[in-house]
Amino acid sequence: MWWQDQIRMTTRGRGFHTLTDEIATKVRESGVETGLCHLFLRHTSAGLCVTENADPEVQRDLERFAQRLAPDGDPLFQHDAEGTDDMPAHVRNLVLGYQLTVPIHAGRLGLGTWQGIYLWEHRRSSMRRELLVTICGQSGSAALNKL
Amino acid sequence: MWWQDQIRMTTRGRGFHTLTDEIATKVRESGVETGLCHLFLRHTSAGLCVTENADPEVQRDLERFAQRLAPDGDPLFQHDAEGTDDMPAHVRNLVLGYQLTVPIHAGRLGLGTWQGIYLWEHRRSSMRRELLVTICGQSGSAALNKL
Amino acid sequence: MWWQDQIRMTTRGRGFHTLTDEIATKVRESGVETGLCHLFLRHTSAGLCVTENADPEVQRDLERFAQRLAPDGDPLFQHDAEGTDDMPAHVRNLVLGYQLTVPIHAGRLGLGTWQGIYLWEHRRSSMRRELLVTICGQSGSAALNKL
Repeated sequence: MWWQDQIRMTTRGRGFHTLTDEIATKVRESGVETGLCHLFLRHTSAGLCVTENADPEVQRDLERFAQRLAPDGDPLFQHDAEGTDDMPAHVRNLVLGYQLTVPIHAGRLGLGTWQGIYLWEHRRSSMRRELLVTICGQSGSAALNKL
Repeated sequence: MWWQDQIRMTTRGRGFHTLTDEIATKVRESGVETGLCHLFLRHTSAGLCVTENADPEVQRDLERFAQRLAPDGDPLFQHDAEGTDDMPAHVRNLVLGYQLTVPIHAGRLGLGTWQGIYLWEHRRSSMRRELLVTICGQSGSAALNKL
Repeated sequence: MWWQDQIRMTTRGRGFHTLTDEIATKVRESGVETGLCHLFLRHTSAGLCVTENADPEVQRDLERFAQRLAPDGDPLFQHDAEGTDDMPAHVRNLVLGYQLTVPIHAGRLGLGTWQGIYLWEHRRSSMRRELLVTICGQSGSAALNKL
C-alpha cells in the first residue's frame, strides 16, 4: 500500500516551521496502520528534521549553533552567488538534515512525546519550498507486530 | 510483509551501547529476506548511528569530537532546564543522527565488515530509551535481485 | 515489489563522485513508478549524500568545511591506524551522511532541480567502495497518489 503527496509552503526567512500536524493528517488520510512515512525536501539550502517540540529556546539555541558552525559571510567559502547566506545554507542542509523516515504505529506517527517534525529555513529571505511525502505500509496491524 | 517491534533499554551515562546483535536477531525473527530495517529513536537527547565496530578508540575519539562541537555548559546556549549537558545533547542528537535505515540482503543486515549499529547516549546520567524497529520486505529473494 | 543491487567503484582520493545517473538508471530498470530508493554505503570512512549539483565551487567549499570540522592530524584524535586522515574520515562519515532514501515519483527519482546524489570519498588515497541499492514500490501510480 503506497501513498504519495507533496507539501508546498512559503517560508518567512531563517527559522523553524512546524510540520508535525500536517504530516500526521497525511498519515491518517493514507489509512496506513503499520508502516513508514518518508519525507524528502527538494532543496539544498533548507532543512528537514525531528527535534525538541516543547521549549522554543531550543530552536533559538539550534539556530545559534548553526550560525557558529557556518557563519554567514564565512571567509572559508567561495560560493556566494546568492549572497553571504548561500554557502552556509548548503552546509546546514547537509549537516542538519534534508530527508528522514518516521515509523507509523497504530495508524499514527511513532514520534516520542518531545519530538516534532520541522522544516528549518536556512536562507534569510522568504523562499518557496517543496517536500515529497511517501507513505507505505499496511492497513491492519502488522502480522508480526510485537508491540 | 511488515514487522514492528521496540527496544527498551536503560543507558549508563554518556557513551556507545551496541545494538547490532539485537537488531540482527529481530531481522531473523521477521523472516524478511530482501528488504529494509528502519530504526527510530524516540528521544531528542541521545543518538542512533552506524559507525566503526573494531577499535574502541574510535568511539572515544567520536565522543571527544562531540564534546568539542557542543561543549557542556557552552555559553552559546540558553536552554539548560535539565543541566549543562541538556542543550549539547539536543545538538548532538541532530548532527550525529537519530534514525536510520539498514538494507536486508539474504535475510541478514547488509552492514559492511567494519560497521556496527549503536545507541549513543548524549546525557551524562542514566536514561530510559525507546527505539522503534520497523522491518519490511519479502520472504524470498527479490524478483529482480541482481546481487 | 522489491529490487536490490549494488554499485562498486574505485575512488580517486578525497572528493565527490556523482551517482545520480547510475541510480536513475537502476530506478528505471526496477520498473517502480511510486516508491522509495534506499542507498547504503558499506563503509565508515566515506560519505553518501544529496547536495547541490550546479556549481563545482559548492563541492570545494564543502570539502573546505569538512577539513575545518575535523582536520587531518587533529591532535584531538588518538585513532590513526591508517594515517592522519583515518579518524577525520570516520567523523566526516558520521556528520555528513552514509545512507539516505530518495522518493520515486512517476518512475523517476524525486530530486529537486538542483539536487544530485554523490559518493564523497573522505580518505586521501584511492579506495574500493560498495553501495547497496534497495528499491521498493509499485509499478502503477500509487492508489492514493495525490500529486
